[in-house]
Amino acid sequence: MHNRHFTRPSELTEIVERKQSHVEICLNGPIDYENKTNGFDHYFFEHTATPEVNFSEIDLSTTFLGRKISYPLMISSMTGGYSGAMFVNQMLAEICQHLNIPLGVGSMRQALEDKSYQQSFEIVRKVAQNVQIFANIGAPEVAQGLSRDQLKFLTNLIKADGLIIHINPAQELFQPEGNTNFKGFLSQLKALIDAVQIPVIAKEVGAGISGKVAARLIDAGVTAIDVAGAGGTSWQKVEKVRYERKYGIDKRFSATAMNELLNWGIPTAECLVQITKLKASEPEKYNNIELISSGGISNGVEIAKSLALGAQIAASARPILKQLLAREDSSQDNLERTIMTWMNDLRATMFLAGVSSIAQLRQTKLIC
Amino acid sequence: MHNRHFTRPSELTEIVERKQSHVEICLNGPIDYENKTNGFDHYFFEHTATPEVNFSEIDLSTTFLGRKISYPLMISSMTGGYSGAMFVNQMLAEICQHLNIPLGVGSMRQALEDKSYQQSFEIVRKVAQNVQIFANIGAPEVAQGLSRDQLKFLTNLIKADGLIIHINPAQELFQPEGNTNFKGFLSQLKALIDAVQIPVIAKEVGAGISGKVAARLIDAGVTAIDVAGAGGTSWQKVEKVRYERKYGIDKRFSATAMNELLNWGIPTAECLVQITKLKASEPEKYNNIELISSGGISNGVEIAKSLALGAQIAASARPILKQLLAREDSSQDNLERTIMTWMNDLRATMFLAGVSSIAQLRQTKLIC
Amino acid sequence: MHNRHFTRPSELTEIVERKQSHVEICLNGPIDYENKTNGFDHYFFEHTATPEVNFSEIDLSTTFLGRKISYPLMISSMTGGYSGAMFVNQMLAEICQHLNIPLGVGSMRQALEDKSYQQSFEIVRKVAQNVQIFANIGAPEVAQGLSRDQLKFLTNLIKADGLIIHINPAQELFQPEGNTNFKGFLSQLKALIDAVQIPVIAKEVGAGISGKVAARLIDAGVTAIDVAGAGGTSWQKVEKVRYERKYGIDKRFSATAMNELLNWGIPTAECLVQITKLKASEPEKYNNIELISSGGISNGVEIAKSLALGAQIAASARPILKQLLAREDSSQDNLERTIMTWMNDLRATMFLAGVSSIAQLRQTKLIC
Amino acid sequence: MHNRHFTRPSELTEIVERKQSHVEICLNGPIDYENKTNGFDHYFFEHTATPEVNFSEIDLSTTFLGRKISYPLMISSMTGGYSGAMFVNQMLAEICQHLNIPLGVGSMRQALEDKSYQQSFEIVRKVAQNVQIFANIGAPEVAQGLSRDQLKFLTNLIKADGLIIHINPAQELFQPEGNTNFKGFLSQLKALIDAVQIPVIAKEVGAGISGKVAARLIDAGVTAIDVAGAGGTSWQKVEKVRYERKYGIDKRFSATAMNELLNWGIPTAECLVQITKLKASEPEKYNNIELISSGGISNGVEIAKSLALGAQIAASARPILKQLLAREDSSQDNLERTIMTWMNDLRATMFLAGVSSIAQLRQTKLIC
Ligand SMILES: Cc1cc2nc3c(=O)[nH]c(=O)nc-3n(C[C@H](O)[C@H](O)[C@H](O)COP(=O)(O)O)c2cc1C
Ligand SMILES: Cc1cc2nc3c(=O)[nH]c(=O)nc-3n(C[C@H](O)[C@H](O)[C@H](O)COP(=O)(O)O)c2cc1C
Ligand SMILES: Cc1cc2nc3c(=O)[nH]c(=O)nc-3n(C[C@H](O)[C@H](O)[C@H](O)COP(=O)(O)O)c2cc1C
Ligand SMILES: Cc1cc2nc3c(=O)[nH]c(=O)nc-3n(C[C@H](O)[C@H](O)[C@H](O)COP(=O)(O)O)c2cc1C
Repeated sequence: MHNRHFTRPSELTEIVERKQSHVEICLNGPIDYENKTNGFDHYFFEHTATPEVNFSEIDLSTTFLGRKISYPLMISSMTGGYSGAMFVNQMLAEICQHLNIPLGVGSMRQALEDKSYQQSFEIVRKVAQNVQIFANIGAPEVAQGLSRDQLKFLTNLIKADGLIIHINPAQELFQPEGNTNFKGFLSQLKALIDAVQIPVIAKEVGAGISGKVAARLIDAGVTAIDVAGAGGTSWQKVEKVRYERKYGIDKRFSATAMNELLNWGIPTAECLVQITKLKASEPEKYNNIELISSGGISNGVEIAKSLALGAQIAASARPILKQLLAREDSSQDNLERTIMTWMNDLRATMFLAGVSSIAQLRQTKLIC
Repeated sequence: MHNRHFTRPSELTEIVERKQSHVEICLNGPIDYENKTNGFDHYFFEHTATPEVNFSEIDLSTTFLGRKISYPLMISSMTGGYSGAMFVNQMLAEICQHLNIPLGVGSMRQALEDKSYQQSFEIVRKVAQNVQIFANIGAPEVAQGLSRDQLKFLTNLIKADGLIIHINPAQELFQPEGNTNFKGFLSQLKALIDAVQIPVIAKEVGAGISGKVAARLIDAGVTAIDVAGAGGTSWQKVEKVRYERKYGIDKRFSATAMNELLNWGIPTAECLVQITKLKASEPEKYNNIELISSGGISNGVEIAKSLALGAQIAASARPILKQLLAREDSSQDNLERTIMTWMNDLRATMFLAGVSSIAQLRQTKLIC
Repeated sequence: MHNRHFTRPSELTEIVERKQSHVEICLNGPIDYENKTNGFDHYFFEHTATPEVNFSEIDLSTTFLGRKISYPLMISSMTGGYSGAMFVNQMLAEICQHLNIPLGVGSMRQALEDKSYQQSFEIVRKVAQNVQIFANIGAPEVAQGLSRDQLKFLTNLIKADGLIIHINPAQELFQPEGNTNFKGFLSQLKALIDAVQIPVIAKEVGAGISGKVAARLIDAGVTAIDVAGAGGTSWQKVEKVRYERKYGIDKRFSATAMNELLNWGIPTAECLVQITKLKASEPEKYNNIELISSGGISNGVEIAKSLALGAQIAASARPILKQLLAREDSSQDNLERTIMTWMNDLRATMFLAGVSSIAQLRQTKLIC
Repeated sequence: MHNRHFTRPSELTEIVERKQSHVEICLNGPIDYENKTNGFDHYFFEHTATPEVNFSEIDLSTTFLGRKISYPLMISSMTGGYSGAMFVNQMLAEICQHLNIPLGVGSMRQALEDKSYQQSFEIVRKVAQNVQIFANIGAPEVAQGLSRDQLKFLTNLIKADGLIIHINPAQELFQPEGNTNFKGFLSQLKALIDAVQIPVIAKEVGAGISGKVAARLIDAGVTAIDVAGAGGTSWQKVEKVRYERKYGIDKRFSATAMNELLNWGIPTAECLVQITKLKASEPEKYNNIELISSGGISNGVEIAKSLALGAQIAASARPILKQLLAREDSSQDNLERTIMTWMNDLRATMFLAGVSSIAQLRQTKLIC
């Protein structure tokens, strides 16, 4: 395997530290957006007093990238690449396998570097043999260029059904060791898409993807977009916590500017609205692009609204992790129960909106 | 009498329990909509400094479904079918008879099952011989199909001037023993309307009827619509109280979704605006449909606004019940006094809006 | 003198009591509008950084009904007809004479009845020989019809330059002994205008005059309109205080309706906007009508905004009274000083808006 | 030198006192606008997830009036003319020279009067030889007329690259010894522009310049406009503090009017929007006019927004002064560090907006 750019051993240790702190800070830190919601609170279903629906027959199954899945939900890319990750990934994979929903793994950058970090990824496919698993790599790596061998290696490791590229300029900006060179990303993305055989999904990590950016990504050849909008986890805040642990109080930006930068981003619902509008503007070109709604999704009403606003499925990361690990009573069972409760929220919303299938739900107009 | 679907004895006892708890919870529970009003606070009359009106000559009489009534108000469907209901219904009927206004009885489902529950309905007609009395049955029963005999039995029991069908999907959703199969309701409603000889009124119970739903109901043949909009009593909350008494803390939905579902619904004023617009869009088809404004109506200014927004009359349930039963000083007298105070509110509003008859009031444009 | 309708002696005493309590409640009571301002807080001047103005040369003089006055302000109709009123009216008249601004006297109804009540009106003209003095009578009296002799008597008593008719349905509605028969008012107003030789001004007392009402009044022949809009003194509240002193807690209206009725009315600025629009719609017909802006005016910035919104002059009642009587340090001097401070506010506003005459001020567009 | 209008010795002492108190009050007083921001909080950049930008190559250099400068920022006119000013001006000049950004000096009125006050201005050019330095004089002086000799003297003293005229009617209105005669200013400004050889910049001091005023100023011949909008320092408040120190509590205006006058002015962002619209309406006429955005600018996100809204550069006064002098840890170093932090804010904003040069930034559309 050719390893052109990365990574001295010390850097690798750093990545491992980072991956671990990400999980830990996500469980404990006050890292929510402030004064900005994911936008679903501005949209409402109109009550349908005569819902020609039998609640118990509501069908939540749908397709994602051509595969039938039982619920319109995926567990978003989170972790991998350090020993603790093995355990988390195994539990997530078991649940996805059990519920028949897709799963993304965390960034696989360090798997490129060191064999010992591969196991925590491989476990996912071992456990979840029948569901879609998505590989994951970051925009800065893409911008620097990845060889065909590297790509093949990554996707083979988990027999990936697709490759997710996370684009995270706001996170990199705050990350102590962040890579803020995004020059050339779009052309390298195009090259990468030409090189891999599987679908490529572009995704933010919480600052959202606008209609304008979506158009560029689709022009580069992506198959799906996960908007990962603002209103949930602020990765600027996560990295600021890490920065301050290392260097003390963060004075990189003015106090008032800091506030705007930490809460920077496009609310999830707004991303969906913009990209759905884009899709409607040139259906022949954009119609096949599937949208994933994520960013602060934490119940089934929001999933229902996501689909009504144009998403194919919804996705969730931090709320999922918290159900698994955050509290005394967190557990795999607890997580699965929570997902089932979300699905009940979704059913209730569909019932009161008068629809009994996901396809009908997507035809429903929201009020704002 | 054919009793096709319902009801084992144990079920019947359950209905009785339910009817009793409904009254009790409505008197005590914190079951108001939160962060959502019935919408009348967004509409205002323009002050008329020169009201060519003599206050003491203001005429509140109007018609409802062809009958002259003294005030544009009816007492909404509430109870019946258990021993305590007898007493309540008798008092309400006496007041309606005395004031010459219409009355709806509560759901008559259990009267179909057991003779002993019929008395609490019959009393109403005995006492109120000269006013309109409306029978009541629920959408789930309609969806399951009611025989001509059953219908005839129900309406004969109180010599009903009309039959009210309450459509309550949100309530059924939260009701511990709720029936959430609304499939086939509209076609069964059409069949029912063909089968009965009296006018049929469709009504919600607090989540409201949109313009779109109104069109479907009118197409099915209803004569009048009681919007029973959001902003007053949340029947989701009533049933949640009952659920929690039985099963402990309600985890059927996510905490954040719960909040949206409990406060789900279209504000009363908004329902009126939508349906009035529908009526104006195809007058030949819709003009004869009469609208009842209900859902959190609790004074005469709101009644005035209701009529200006297109309602034929207003209606009230829980506020009425509270005047009758809630406090030490509640009583039949107290209720009648309250209704008369509402009528004085109405007169005052008409005076300051410069109109002296209900017909003129309906021509008045509100500001929003 | 023919006295067709009024007034038994006991009634007369009642009027005297009323006049006295009005002053007293206006000085002490919490009778301001709540959650409703006079509307000027929604309008702003655009700052003019280059005001081709010499502050010390700003000219505040203007005309009102053809007479030159020194400031665009009048003291609104307040009192008369009981012994204490003599003193108040004398002080107000002295100030108006000194400042060369118009003055309205309070309702002269009781002067029709009893000689002993005339003095408190006559004093005004004795003291203020060179300024416009306006007689005052209420809409209910007008509606009942006033004879030519009665009218002549009233206007002669103070050698009135014009007659103000106050139209106050909301006040009468709350007044314990209120006269709520406004039927026939408009035609009687027309007759009255034909009968008197001096200009007639129609005015509310705090609930405002809409564009629609203004059109009716102008059609009836009035020369000027004092909008007396909502946002300052609520006469409903004044009368409610009197009602409760007599009869205990006021249950004439429902608690929630009460709130709407007590704060009923069109904000002053909104009245001006509506009537100015009316004037622009048919200039030949309406252009000569002069508008008085009143209702909660309490500084010179509001006076400036009034004129920019189309008023000829502003007027004030309760704030004036308070400067004269409310506190230890209230006095005639204090009132005059306050008026001069308002005029300084007005000058400052004109300076920063870049205008140096009242005529230019009236051409200025506000931002809202 | 001809000294036509000003200034008796006692007046001169007064100016010195004033200049000193200005600095002192600006460091300590509560003189911010209340309930009014500079307006940038209403405008947002849309997040660009794919910023084809290398953060470390972002170029902040631009031009101002034809000269290349390193950052789009100038230090606004503040002080001079008393002994303490010497020290302040020297430190500011050193920083501007070091950072290669423009500097304005404070009003030079007293330098016309007395030689001993010239040094505090001369120092600026001695220290900052390679950057643009701007002379400064007030609108009242301009309105009274300045001779060619006076103008030449002023601009020679600091070898000025341009002359700033501050127009401050709101400040003069509150200033105890304020000159509120602005009559003739515009024609005198035109004459002055004809007389001087260097560019003339018109600027407010915190109440803002509207589109309408900008048109007049450009017609008079100015080359650039510093909007100095509302939302930062209220000079009305500064002068009110001085007034109250001299004469006790300020009763020149009514309490409620006072509040509106103290917070009078057009928010900075709103000024930019208005003038940019003006420029677009007649590009041939207005396109060469450069805009300076100032008024409460206190971080680099606001600078970024300023440029996106049409400004050539931003400027700051009081926030700069505070970094230099306000607290224990204030110092020249501290100020330079702060400016560099602002520049980092600016870079971060540009990175997330997807632009790498100031020219591109100016093409970016904000959302509001
Ligand atoms: C602990 C943790 C680690 C994450 N690591 C990755 C990652 O490696 N790759 C990636 O694309 N996104 C990563 N994310 C971002 C999520 O996939 C998601 O886009 C983001 O957190 C917003 O969604 P949420 O509000 O549901 O958390 C991570 C999220 C969490 C909580
Ligand atoms: C105690 C109680 C029992 C009720 N039972 C019935 C019923 O059996 N059938 C029905 O159509 N509505 C029923 N309702 C609903 C009311 O008719 C009404 O639509 C609803 O409460 C909203 O109006 P409100 O805000 O005036 O209470 C009941 C209401 C109350 C308070
Ligand atoms: C003590 C008092 C007595 C009043 N009496 C009269 C009256 O007799 N006739 C009348 O037209 N208006 C009367 N008014 C109403 C005022 O003229 C004015 O329209 C109203 O108070 C609103 O203006 P304001 O907010 O400046 O007080 C009276 C007002 C006050 C304060
Ligand atoms: C201490 C001080 C003195 C000032 N003196 C002058 C001056 O002499 N001439 C001038 O044009 N502006 C003067 N200003 C106004 C500023 O240049 C600027 O327009 C105003 O303060 C608004 O900007 P800011 O919010 O960044 O402070 C002064 C400002 C300060 C803080």
